[in-house]
Formats: sequence, C-alpha cells, structure tokens
Amino acid sequence: MSTSPLLEQLIDALRCLPGVGQKSAQRMAYHLLERERAGGRRLAERLAEAMEKVGHCERCRDFSESPLCPICSSPARDAQTLCIVETPADRLAIETATGYRGLYFVLQGRLSPLDGIGPRELGLDVLAARLATGEVAELIVATNPTVEGEATAHYLAQLARGHGVRPSRPAHGLPLGGELEYTDRGTLAHAFGTRAEILR
Amino acid sequence: MSTSPLLEQLIDALRCLPGVGQKSAQRMAYHLLERERAGGRRLAERLAEAMEKVGHCERCRDFSESPLCPICSSPARDAQTLCIVETPADRLAIETATGYRGLYFVLQGRLSPLDGIGPRELGLDVLAARLATGEVAELIVATNPTVEGEATAHYLAQLARGHGVRPSRPAHGLPLGGELEYTDRGTLAHAFGTRAEILR
Ligand SMILES: [Zn+2]
Ligand SMILES: [Zn+2]
Repeated sequence: MSTSPLLEQLIDALRCLPGVGQKSAQRMAYHLLERERAGGRRLAERLAEAMEKVGHCERCRDFSESPLCPICSSPARDAQTLCIVETPADRLAIETATGYRGLYFVLQGRLSPLDGIGPRELGLDVLAARLATGEVAELIVATNPTVEGEATAHYLAQLARGHGVRPSRPAHGLPLGGELEYTDRGTLAHAFGTRAEILR
Repeated sequence: MSTSPLLEQLIDALRCLPGVGQKSAQRMAYHLLERERAGGRRLAERLAEAMEKVGHCERCRDFSESPLCPICSSPARDAQTLCIVETPADRLAIETATGYRGLYFVLQGRLSPLDGIGPRELGLDVLAARLATGEVAELIVATNPTVEGEATAHYLAQLARGHGVRPSRPAHGLPLGGELEYTDRGTLAHAFGTRAEILR
C-alpha cells in the first residue's frame, strides 16, 4: 500500500526517462520531495515549456524553438561549408569540441532500408534542393563510423558530387564502431581538423 | 552555441535529479523531444502536482497528500504494533516484502548529533506522546543495521521501555553495513518475521 497516489503517479511518470527503472524513479521522487522541491517545480515548468515549444529548424532539422535556429540564422557562419550529422547530440559535440564555423544539417537518423528509413525520412530531398542552389562548396559528412553510418556517408558523397559539391569526411581517429557523441574532445577535434576529401 | 535556449534550460533543470550529470541530462532531454513528448508532458504535470500537494502524514511522517495517510487512517491495521523506519523507502520495502499489518513511524533520518539531528528533529517527542497513550504494545525498531542506525535503535528501545512498551528488532540476516532499502525481499521478509525482543 502506498501512502500517496500522487507520489506513485510521479514515480510511474519518471520511468519514461531513458535508463530509469522502478527503483531509480522511486529514488528520484523521494529525493525531489525531501530535498529539491524548488528544483522539481522548475523541472516541471521547463519540461512543459520544452515539450510544447521546441520543434525543429526548417533549415537544418536540429531542435529549435523558432523556425530558423540561431546557427542557421547567424550571419557569422560560413554558408559554403555544410556538415552532416546523424543527431543533435553529434552536432553539439562538434560545435563544442572544434572551431567549426560552417553550417549543419541533422539527419535525425541514418539510412536503414530494413527499418524503412530511406533518403526522404532523413530529409535528403531538402538537402539536395539546397545543394542545387550552388551555395554549398564543401559537404563534410560526419556520420558515425558504423556500418550504417558509412553507407549513409557513401550515399551523401554521391549526392554531393552530383551537384558539383566537394564531399569530405573527418579523418579517422574516431574509434571504429564507436559513437561520435561519446568521443573525447581531443580525438574529435583532431579528426575534424584533418578531414580528407572523399575521392570515390 | 545551442540551437534552443529552452532545450538548454531543460537539460539544466534535469540535473536536479540524483545521479544525473550533464551527459545523462542531455540524453534524457533529446529522448523526450525525439520520442516521448506525451510522456514528457505527463511527467511535467505529475511533477508539478506532487511538488505542490504531497506533504507529510501528521501521524507517521511518511509522504501523504492528506493530513492522515491511507495506512494511518485504515481501520484494518493493528494500532498496537508500531514499526519505526528511517525513510519512506524503508517503509515501502517492508510493506512490499512482508505481511506486516501494524502501523509505521518514519523518522526521516537517524540520530546524528554531529549533524545536529537529535530526538526532536526525528519527531521523537511526537512518538513519545503516542507511546504515552498506552495504545502501542510493541515497537518494532527497523532502523538500518549501521552504526548510527543501531545507536538510534538503542535510544528508541529505551524510550519504549520507559513507556511500558515492548521494543523489538528485526532478526539479523540483514547484511551488516548495508541499506535496508536495497535488501532483497526474501531476506527482509525472513528478518522481519523472526524479530527478537530487545532485552537490554
Ligand atoms: Zn538550423
Ligand atoms: Zn501516516
């Protein structure tokens, strides 16, 4: 028997967080009620606001609360260089670790025909239209060094060449089979700085 | 540079959860935005409601959204047996693992003079008044088998005897130095069932 149905509902709701099971959810709820009511209230407000207002940038598909995200709408960024990443977390990792000043395009996934994820699901029709304008000179393909990521990179390199855009790929140095998001900053910065053109 | 200030604020707010650092908070926020908006909204609502409405039961000090919790106000429970625990999590563990049908009293801590936690901070004046009424026949002292928990148990046993109440303690079998909350159900149920009277 619980002493509070509202507490039980909170524990249940916390389980929608990744990696949080019954025991962790319970510990979190008790912690908030015992020591962090202000933090819990702030979290409730920010959660509600983010779920309501954070959508996707029309141009780069990263998270954004305005139609164009701050990076895409910044005149200080170099529009001739476009970096393709799989996820917002990868975009943030590159932005934090490297001195990159170009723009981004977030696939929100990778090509995976067996899961029904093709070029359209990754917004590659939108990307192709952008490459067709001629404003992009170099396409940095920073998909993960996994089998699917490499296949996606191969597809993107062909797409770029088809529009007269030079494709490149961050240098190896990324741990093979690993995830870009979890690569240490130094390795990531080095790999990004020594990227090589994709020759075929 | 972030693409969404609201997203950054959400990540920041998630860090008030225990055991959640920058990287986990980021993963949680992305997960909710990408795949669990409904769950995120529900969590926001339940958090707000729980932070607002869940207080403490006047009688047992466990969490409750009403002045008296459902256990304290249940006529089906045996008011002659009172079980003392350190935390709501301990109370829940006993309730889930054992067939106990008496009432509880939650210390919300343990005696720790160096931290300024004395009898009054644990509500022992309220407990003493309750023992003085004569309605309690047995006081089961289920504090954790740690140094401070044992010291607290000793104090409580003396308090009980002073009011003519028989103190008891769940049988050993609990791992020494461990936390009651994380004990497996079988061990906890066994220890609870074979509790022994505290003789001195
Ligand atoms: Zn954008
Ligand atoms: Zn109660």
